[in-house]
Amino acid sequence: MINSPRDWFLVAIFYIVAANILIKAGNYNDVELTFLNYTSLDFKLAKKTMINIRQATQQDFSRVLELINELALFEKEPDAVEISIEDLIRNGTGNNPLFTCFVGEYQGNIEGMALCYPRFSTWKGVTIHLEDLIVTQKMRGVGLGKALYNEVLKHALKKGARRVEWVVLDWNTHAIDFYKNTGATVFDEWRVVQMDHGSLTAYIDKQ
Amino acid sequence: MINSPRDWFLVAIFYIVAANILIKAGNYNDVELTFLNYTSLDFKLAKKTMINIRQATQQDFSRVLELINELALFEKEPDAVEISIEDLIRNGTGNNPLFTCFVGEYQGNIEGMALCYPRFSTWKGVTIHLEDLIVTQKMRGVGLGKALYNEVLKHALKKGARRVEWVVLDWNTHAIDFYKNTGATVFDEWRVVQMDHGSLTAYIDKQ
Repeated sequence: MINSPRDWFLVAIFYIVAANILIKAGNYNDVELTFLNYTSLDFKLAKKTMINIRQATQQDFSRVLELINELALFEKEPDAVEISIEDLIRNGTGNNPLFTCFVGEYQGNIEGMALCYPRFSTWKGVTIHLEDLIVTQKMRGVGLGKALYNEVLKHALKKGARRVEWVVLDWNTHAIDFYKNTGATVFDEWRVVQMDHGSLTAYIDKQ
Repeated sequence: MINSPRDWFLVAIFYIVAANILIKAGNYNDVELTFLNYTSLDFKLAKKTMINIRQATQQDFSRVLELINELALFEKEPDAVEISIEDLIRNGTGNNPLFTCFVGEYQGNIEGMALCYPRFSTWKGVTIHLEDLIVTQKMRGVGLGKALYNEVLKHALKKGARRVEWVVLDWNTHAIDFYKNTGATVFDEWRVVQMDHGSLTAYIDKQ
């Protein structure tokens, strides 16, 4: 039990030392929160209030492209990203944008994004496809991913979508478990098929 | 060798008998063609000239919905189709339609359809998704499927799409082989995830 001023002093010292260790480990924001709010409930609440999800504007697209490139680099495919900021602006703004992009701010900085667009099922009608959900590596675990996920699902409901869909890699069991826990279904029999631009041109030329 | 009028008579009788057998088997159109064009090359050519692919108009959507329902019935899911003609018209016509639909005519009748729409890849940019390609059961094998497939791919090129994509069931090896032969790639690691409207509402209600 903490009874004397000496005990309180020791508790304070403990937090300062622990905070410094964690700061060195690069988890600055978490430490700040732990220091100020040391009960689990307060901690979660404080984190949540530091998160802000909003629709991306034209000015956000350079940061959004950074996030896309960061992910490609992380996946060891640095040359995979062929789009430019102009592609994002052309297809993501105006009266009939092809996609909707949400950004996730943590303490005022964009640290995550989710990009989605409508599709059309010949059985169900309009659906929403979640193409990408990215959170910067340093900000994983603070709840940005779930906040962005929820925002896309709310957006889908608002748009009257009959379904939301996306794809996941079969070895990503952590993500699959999360999706299933939120009520989604993973279809094991369907396979994604793609014909890239080179194959497309080659095939049509032969016809 | 066919030398005498009697031989020609016997050849004619042979074709009439054969034609009747095939007519009874339900392959009326094929017989008509076989009877008129008995070399393989002429046969293929004649079939091809009977095929016409064009973009669907509002007037075609009732027939398109019939094809969608026919497929659902064939797949033993008669209640799966929730869309109406109005859904097709609302989302498939106007200045900014959500999808493009092609119909395949054989001898002037709509016997097939393909429905596609743009998507947006954060790596490649605009892509085209082939949602559905249907050919009536009685008209399979005359080349309608391939003609519709080619039309969607040409449409994608014309629209500047960087990729065309679709899904296939993993046990449908016939289709998978066809796709691979045309230059497409089948991705074994990706899984389709869907959250239907009921699960979506339930999940958001809990947040």
